[in-house]
Amino acid sequence: MKKLRKITVLGMGLLGASITSAILRSNSGVKSCGYSHRESTRQKSREIGVADEICDNLTKAVKDADVVILATPISIFDDIFAEIGPDLKPGCIVTDVGSTKLLPHKWAQKTLPKSVYYVGSHPIAGSEKRGVEYARDDLLFGAACIVTRTPKTDVKSSKTIEKLWADLGCIVKVMTPNEHDKIFSTVSHVPHITAAALVNATSKEQLPYAGKGFIDTSRIASGPENVWSDILMANSTNIAKGLGKVIKQLEKLQAAVQAKDQKKIEKLLADARQKRAELIEQKVKSRELL
Amino acid sequence: MKKLRKITVLGMGLLGASITSAILRSNSGVKSCGYSHRESTRQKSREIGVADEICDNLTKAVKDADVVILATPISIFDDIFAEIGPDLKPGCIVTDVGSTKLLPHKWAQKTLPKSVYYVGSHPIAGSEKRGVEYARDDLLFGAACIVTRTPKTDVKSSKTIEKLWADLGCIVKVMTPNEHDKIFSTVSHVPHITAAALVNATSKEQLPYAGKGFIDTSRIASGPENVWSDILMANSTNIAKGLGKVIKQLEKLQAAVQAKDQKKIEKLLADARQKRAELIEQKVKSRELL
Repeated sequence: MKKLRKITVLGMGLLGASITSAILRSNSGVKSCGYSHRESTRQKSREIGVADEICDNLTKAVKDADVVILATPISIFDDIFAEIGPDLKPGCIVTDVGSTKLLPHKWAQKTLPKSVYYVGSHPIAGSEKRGVEYARDDLLFGAACIVTRTPKTDVKSSKTIEKLWADLGCIVKVMTPNEHDKIFSTVSHVPHITAAALVNATSKEQLPYAGKGFIDTSRIASGPENVWSDILMANSTNIAKGLGKVIKQLEKLQAAVQAKDQKKIEKLLADARQKRAELIEQKVKSRELL
Repeated sequence: MKKLRKITVLGMGLLGASITSAILRSNSGVKSCGYSHRESTRQKSREIGVADEICDNLTKAVKDADVVILATPISIFDDIFAEIGPDLKPGCIVTDVGSTKLLPHKWAQKTLPKSVYYVGSHPIAGSEKRGVEYARDDLLFGAACIVTRTPKTDVKSSKTIEKLWADLGCIVKVMTPNEHDKIFSTVSHVPHITAAALVNATSKEQLPYAGKGFIDTSRIASGPENVWSDILMANSTNIAKGLGKVIKQLEKLQAAVQAKDQKKIEKLLADARQKRAELIEQKVKSRELL
């Protein structure tokens, strides 16, 4: 496996800065370098000390890097690939932390020079908070991280990226970008939309009576809309399909409630409770929930 | 206002036992009495010591009580009203902790003797956990509690019940049962169904990839289905209507995603984020969230 000397993260948001912070804390001797296109973010990043080095320009940031990690919105990945391509050293491994994986793979294949390798990554870590000031060097600890590869992906580079995330505390799983996007439309993108729909269906007069249940159920609706609209755009087919399934389930429950069919209502609620109990049990066993 | 000497709670579940525990801890000199129809629950309640007295039968439990609080499933309220009616002392105030209020008011009017008073209550406190073993004497602290009355309700009795909840740490709000059931269909019952629909729309193969977002969004789907089916039955018209609004919002977002209309997607997500931000701000101000 490749010995890493410099890892560059592009984008000093909550996740990007948490990655450089985790590399810093790991004491592995690997140099962590961060870049943001905003002067104010670069300054904050330096003040907080989230990386060994914060670079003022992209060329300098990616120069000599063994691994480059994109932690910007997905919608600009292709532009970044085009911009950094000529500055990447041969053999450099490019990855990203985007929440969808089919498009990044497609863009990388099309835009990155043939002298470098691309592997997809999706660490399942985050928060509804934004910005370098919320970075935490333990954000990745115990988090799942999906690494995606296609038959065209260089296996050695994939192994290097898998080890990198594992070293930062992640539980790594490997799959194809296609599998990834299907699964995450259901367990992540669709729930996000459901939370937003729930809030939008509630009037301002009713909202003050919301209790802990509503607050939990709607938490992810507080995520940044620009990041999320990128994700929804990049995985639209799977998401539209997944939303159809949720609407069907809602209509089933609505029909049972309307018909006052208590047996049916109880059955549908029991199905959900049991399924979720299995999920929680599995998360506790795998130590993702403690 | 009436001086209370004995308060009886029927049903030693999480909420019922938390109420007797809170009365015990309040050191107010009011005697707290608990009843459960299950021998094993009565025994556990005695072992944990959640009330001054745990009674073996209903008649003894409600005898001499100044206030009787029903903390059983809503579906048996009417039967309990009929059963305890003859044993209630004149002037006794009956209330309940049910999550819907129109039906309890209707049943009380029809079934309770004219010599006693009924006031509706709905403390917004709970957990997805069940049973006396999870009772906490601080469960009500800082929780909102809706007290419901109609033009027929005895105002003095209502004031007594309002003071009782306030003394136990609740933030009390008064409204009609009709207003209550409309509001809570939207902020509580519909979110419950949405959480269940979300879980039911997810396959067992996908579930292990669920992250914190999914786990939070679906938390309330772990509630007991018998309690919840009662609630959904008792408020079916409002809930069916509320579900219609959520489905409409989901279809709006689905259409925007399908059309890849990023502006529209972003607008709908931003609406939700802003609305939720206002909710959280208001909850923090009112100290319901700290």
